[in-house]
Amino acid sequence: MSDEINLRILLANRPSGFPKESDFIIEESSIPIPEEGEILIQTEWLSLDPYMRGRMNDQKSYADPVAIGEVMVGGAVGRVVRSRSPIYEIGDVVEGRLGWQAYAISNGSDIRKVNLDLGPIQTSIGILGMPGLTAYFGFLDVCEPIPGDTVVVSAASGAVGQVVGQIAKIMGCRVIGTVGSDSKLSFVVDELGFDAAINYKKQDVGNALDVTCPNGIDIYFDNVGGFVTDAVMDRINTGARISVCGQISQYNLPEPEFAPRNMSILTRKQSKMEGFLVTKYQSLFDDGRIRMAGWIKSGELKYREYVVEGLENAPRTFIGMLNGENFGKTLVKLV
Amino acid sequence: MSDEINLRILLANRPSGFPKESDFIIEESSIPIPEEGEILIQTEWLSLDPYMRGRMNDQKSYADPVAIGEVMVGGAVGRVVRSRSPIYEIGDVVEGRLGWQAYAISNGSDIRKVNLDLGPIQTSIGILGMPGLTAYFGFLDVCEPIPGDTVVVSAASGAVGQVVGQIAKIMGCRVIGTVGSDSKLSFVVDELGFDAAINYKKQDVGNALDVTCPNGIDIYFDNVGGFVTDAVMDRINTGARISVCGQISQYNLPEPEFAPRNMSILTRKQSKMEGFLVTKYQSLFDDGRIRMAGWIKSGELKYREYVVEGLENAPRTFIGMLNGENFGKTLVKLV
Repeated sequence: MSDEINLRILLANRPSGFPKESDFIIEESSIPIPEEGEILIQTEWLSLDPYMRGRMNDQKSYADPVAIGEVMVGGAVGRVVRSRSPIYEIGDVVEGRLGWQAYAISNGSDIRKVNLDLGPIQTSIGILGMPGLTAYFGFLDVCEPIPGDTVVVSAASGAVGQVVGQIAKIMGCRVIGTVGSDSKLSFVVDELGFDAAINYKKQDVGNALDVTCPNGIDIYFDNVGGFVTDAVMDRINTGARISVCGQISQYNLPEPEFAPRNMSILTRKQSKMEGFLVTKYQSLFDDGRIRMAGWIKSGELKYREYVVEGLENAPRTFIGMLNGENFGKTLVKLV
Repeated sequence: MSDEINLRILLANRPSGFPKESDFIIEESSIPIPEEGEILIQTEWLSLDPYMRGRMNDQKSYADPVAIGEVMVGGAVGRVVRSRSPIYEIGDVVEGRLGWQAYAISNGSDIRKVNLDLGPIQTSIGILGMPGLTAYFGFLDVCEPIPGDTVVVSAASGAVGQVVGQIAKIMGCRVIGTVGSDSKLSFVVDELGFDAAINYKKQDVGNALDVTCPNGIDIYFDNVGGFVTDAVMDRINTGARISVCGQISQYNLPEPEFAPRNMSILTRKQSKMEGFLVTKYQSLFDDGRIRMAGWIKSGELKYREYVVEGLENAPRTFIGMLNGENFGKTLVKLV
């Protein structure tokens, strides 16, 4: 708090199509002062995630949109630097929807204390936070894996995809990932142990699935939607389970993309397509964190982070993530 | 067997788009003679159902296509007129995939004896047969109804839809049907007790759903697909359950219809879309039949049949069903 300045990133415009840096305002303001019962948190790490694109639209989704001129929404982890709360002490590490800002005020109801024994501080908003828990519950609960199942996961090197694929391996499944570059392909196969991967920018996804999934697809964990998903749907087995986690290929289209209707596949294949939000599993988060932390310690679960320093770089880094340019869980390091 | 002639209807051509009568051949042949272990069945009633359209395509679906020159596939009920089987006696009423023909041979493995105490003979291939069981299990198991749920069912006066809507009422749900004529609309509301219905040919389905489902839609039992389904999807509640039973609006298109991708709705609304085939519930069929027969006897469950006499009229009647011209469960009476 040496310079007594709070850096904040506000939503300037509602983008049509891909966001531009000019859709954000970087603003300096004074550091807020906690009132009775409140704490002041200095943000150390900010998580950038695809869902934030939806909050930039003027459309009620599962959560309210960010208002123009309001701080961008985002999960972050930081330390309590002032406390007027009986529950939090200076130095406590806390995580929550603190937003794209260097300092945040909280009354304590929207944050949690982070257990640093489970992993490095930034894992609390990464593999042991929302993205990791999304992978854990979305895969284990929605996809109901059985050893031997063939699993396809899209955006396989991303924050969620990399965790889904490794948990699928732990569960005894065959795992094929789709990725957007050859370096991501090598990473998921050589470092994470996927059985195969497909570069959707270079390969015909349908043909590549025929080669890598000769016995069809039992589980599809979808982060992208679009033509990758169409190719998977044409190859599902009877009783397939499709988890609709994200549709990043669609988030930045000014108009909805048209595609052939193919819902008859679900009937023919007696299959289920289910969307979920990780908040559904809130009461089980600690179980998930502890189990994943165990796998990390045993070496069964790895994670790759894409770290950019400086809050002022958050807009550019966010746009890069939407473009598929980042490689791993996207994080901004503030301190 | 007075005239010793077997009338059979064969597939002549694989239709592109809507089938024409010329896609079928009406053929006279001699009545087949059962071998040791076999029985000869005289068909009394033939069921005509939308799934048969799929079997006319040269495409492996969940079942093999009908070959050109082969008898059209179809559920039928009839009486044993000759028996060389120790299990079946002359006069037994049996039901199975006997095909579009006046006489069929069976070795007994693909048929079942019909219990006439449960209802009139033709109900064994209607409300107490495949269509009724499809409604019963597809609604109760896939849609998991809770009293007070708002349920939308498409093709609501059809063989499956009329049963779904009434079971939903029995379960304490609010039920809205979509239909293709005002007489069907009156029928489902005034005779079957639906809370409301929408004539998709005359009304804007979205606006009509806004009026009839002011609190959104919890369950959608889909028999049609297409724009009706799009309008429903835009209005589902969190935790909605969508049963994909049929997509009749799509079966007769020479090319797939294109539509805006909308799978993000499943994520936002934490909802499930599941396709099923009634065969999944085979081991529970008798339970379903007995329960529905009880509701029929108590007057809680009604059914409407659309009956045409004479096997030679099956092709025309089948095309009428695909066109939405028939009103109720389509049956052909042979004897």
